Amino acid sequence: MALFVHKYGGTSVGTVERIEAVADKLQTFRQAGHDLVVVVSAMSGETNRLIGLAKSIQDQPAPREMDVLVSTGEQVTMALLCMALERRGIAARSYTGGQVRILTDSAHTKARIQDIDVVNIQSDLQAGRIVVVAGFQGVDEQGNITTLGRGGSDTTGVALAAALKADECQIYTDVDGVYTTDPRVVETARRLDRITFEEMLEMASLGSKVLQIRSVEFAGKYKVPLRVLSSFVDGPGTLISVEEDDTVEKPVISGIAFNRDEAKLTIRGVPDVPGVASRILGPVSKANIEIDVIVQNVAADQTTDFTFTVHRNDFDATRQILEQTAQELGAREVAGDNKIAKISIVGVGMRSHAGVASKMFDALAAENINILMISTSEIKVSVIIAEKYLELAVRALHTAFNLDANETVSE
Amino acid sequence: MALFVHKYGGTSVGTVERIEAVADKLQTFRQAGHDLVVVVSAMSGETNRLIGLAKSIQDQPAPREMDVLVSTGEQVTMALLCMALERRGIAARSYTGGQVRILTDSAHTKARIQDIDVVNIQSDLQAGRIVVVAGFQGVDEQGNITTLGRGGSDTTGVALAAALKADECQIYTDVDGVYTTDPRVVETARRLDRITFEEMLEMASLGSKVLQIRSVEFAGKYKVPLRVLSSFVDGPGTLISVEEDDTVEKPVISGIAFNRDEAKLTIRGVPDVPGVASRILGPVSKANIEIDVIVQNVAADQTTDFTFTVHRNDFDATRQILEQTAQELGAREVAGDNKIAKISIVGVGMRSHAGVASKMFDALAAENINILMISTSEIKVSVIIAEKYLELAVRALHTAFNLDANETVSE
Repeated sequence: MALFVHKYGGTSVGTVERIEAVADKLQTFRQAGHDLVVVVSAMSGETNRLIGLAKSIQDQPAPREMDVLVSTGEQVTMALLCMALERRGIAARSYTGGQVRILTDSAHTKARIQDIDVVNIQSDLQAGRIVVVAGFQGVDEQGNITTLGRGGSDTTGVALAAALKADECQIYTDVDGVYTTDPRVVETARRLDRITFEEMLEMASLGSKVLQIRSVEFAGKYKVPLRVLSSFVDGPGTLISVEEDDTVEKPVISGIAFNRDEAKLTIRGVPDVPGVASRILGPVSKANIEIDVIVQNVAADQTTDFTFTVHRNDFDATRQILEQTAQELGAREVAGDNKIAKISIVGVGMRSHAGVASKMFDALAAENINILMISTSEIKVSVIIAEKYLELAVRALHTAFNLDANETVSE
Repeated sequence: MALFVHKYGGTSVGTVERIEAVADKLQTFRQAGHDLVVVVSAMSGETNRLIGLAKSIQDQPAPREMDVLVSTGEQVTMALLCMALERRGIAARSYTGGQVRILTDSAHTKARIQDIDVVNIQSDLQAGRIVVVAGFQGVDEQGNITTLGRGGSDTTGVALAAALKADECQIYTDVDGVYTTDPRVVETARRLDRITFEEMLEMASLGSKVLQIRSVEFAGKYKVPLRVLSSFVDGPGTLISVEEDDTVEKPVISGIAFNRDEAKLTIRGVPDVPGVASRILGPVSKANIEIDVIVQNVAADQTTDFTFTVHRNDFDATRQILEQTAQELGAREVAGDNKIAKISIVGVGMRSHAGVASKMFDALAAENINILMISTSEIKVSVIIAEKYLELAVRALHTAFNLDANETVSE
């Protein structure tokens, strides 16, 4: 007998029929003797309907009231799921974020969880009830309703699992696990049985949008075993957990992430004096533009070339800012390219294996793919290439690192 | 400068456009320097949509979860109204029942208000904000969401007005006030400028469904001036308040209420012994059937005829119970009539005027309308007549008591 936290996303509870299917699944777990805390999202479409109502009144709706409004979506789902459970003779009780009490800061629409009071939930579990909690929401010190931002239901699930010391947090979604790369690009992509928190973080932040990144950070911090599974198809899913001791058995690379939404900008011939980086990037950050990869090279003439990437939507705005900066700094020119993509190989195994980066570069060179930028971290290597080579590059790397499903890899 | 509690029902906030219209109205009050607390219902149709979802899962949905579900309706409205106010540059803040905190008992789906904490609302008013509160809902000692039952938003408004010692509680609805009788039956029916709480209670319980009866009781108990107005048409509405000192000026009769949903049952030839009334009515009450008018006549032969009315829907069930009772008591027979109606003349003025009842009977006799039962209280006289005479009788009484709009009555 174990304590599981389940989380069901919007499509998993999108209709009354699907809510009934979730209740059936929970009944099976219950009959196996497990304790269950279930986090639910709003029925798919409901959050957008509510946002639409708000936007028809106010372009930039008051954030406090926005949270009051959209938090009703999960509240509807949790009540309906409890009814479906009670109809099956299973005692159940629903809780809003405020009722639990999931204490957050007051940053409306993007609040962060500070504390969870588990007293009520634990007494319900002891009384044999399934506890159903509204995802994505909490309450601040003053009792104002807050939301964690889109996708925050994953975070609610992980935070509850941590607070309750659950055996596993299971995220039910519309995919059956985490893959070595996007199966739409690489037919031979494989579902991973396991992946570490760090790897998952790199995969998620680089574009494999299975889990909200904050929930993975949270799970890693509190060492909550996290499993991604399909709501619709039975299967073991992918377990995201701490690194195993026997890393020898681990493949060097777990997966390949990629991202098409990048654009790159270069400012050339900047006098290389201390503080020049912040003079270039400061105005960009001030405009709320997120900077991703940054590369700087110092030339022989004591000037420097400074290149960085931003989201493709921010390309024009960034370029405008940069032209201004170039003038102020007496730089030679500003260049840009918004037809680029980023590919990253990710794996904790590379820590103990030399030559991973060069193997990556060799594989790309073998396909005549030119590398525009390189960025490395302990468990990943990212390259920026021309967007047109993206699929070719991902397939070449997938094969080079023995990730194809027909390979026999120890995992 | 005064403190008003406004309440807007479902049709008044039924669309985004109507919510905008309410915001316009509130802006006018605000510009006049008034403090405002606004109670809102769910957008019309929303509560039924939510109940429909619940019923598609469970025939008799768990009451606790039903309250969790339907309470979202008002929460949506309150957030949207605050947004509409903020767009007009008016600071506003919304509160659920639990946030206020409107403390109720734990009788889910029909809870009663026990206490209201006004600290938060008062500090918002002092800060110059309009406070918007979800009607119809509260929270029990354990923090469970409760609802007051349908129409409970009126009660929320009155209870808040009482707790805040507001100058007036204004109920905005789709009628422009309380009428001397139903204008669909009597063309010359007049809107009343004033009516007392007691009169309103008699009018409401007798079928003039303008206000939820519990809210009128509440207003009377705490002497909260209550005004019924139209959301759509400007006008003074009807003020419901305590009796004025100068009752001499008051008309004898304020209005005429009627009800078609009645059925009458008679048990004849019952031995007239102590306790016979409870032996007849006890089994009916036990079956959760509400009894309205009761009349008993003792005959010369020491037997008694016992007649009472019930809702027409309960006619068959009551008759069945009564046949059983008649057998046990050795009564002569059971008779019934479900084609009857009740008409009541209501007015605090009748306390100080003799002959009101006989004037009523005269007016009916002049139209050859036979009276089947009579029941009186301090401020009303009710008669049961054959249903087919209903409209004729109401019109005759409306004229006899000088209620027609073309009459010059001091009010």
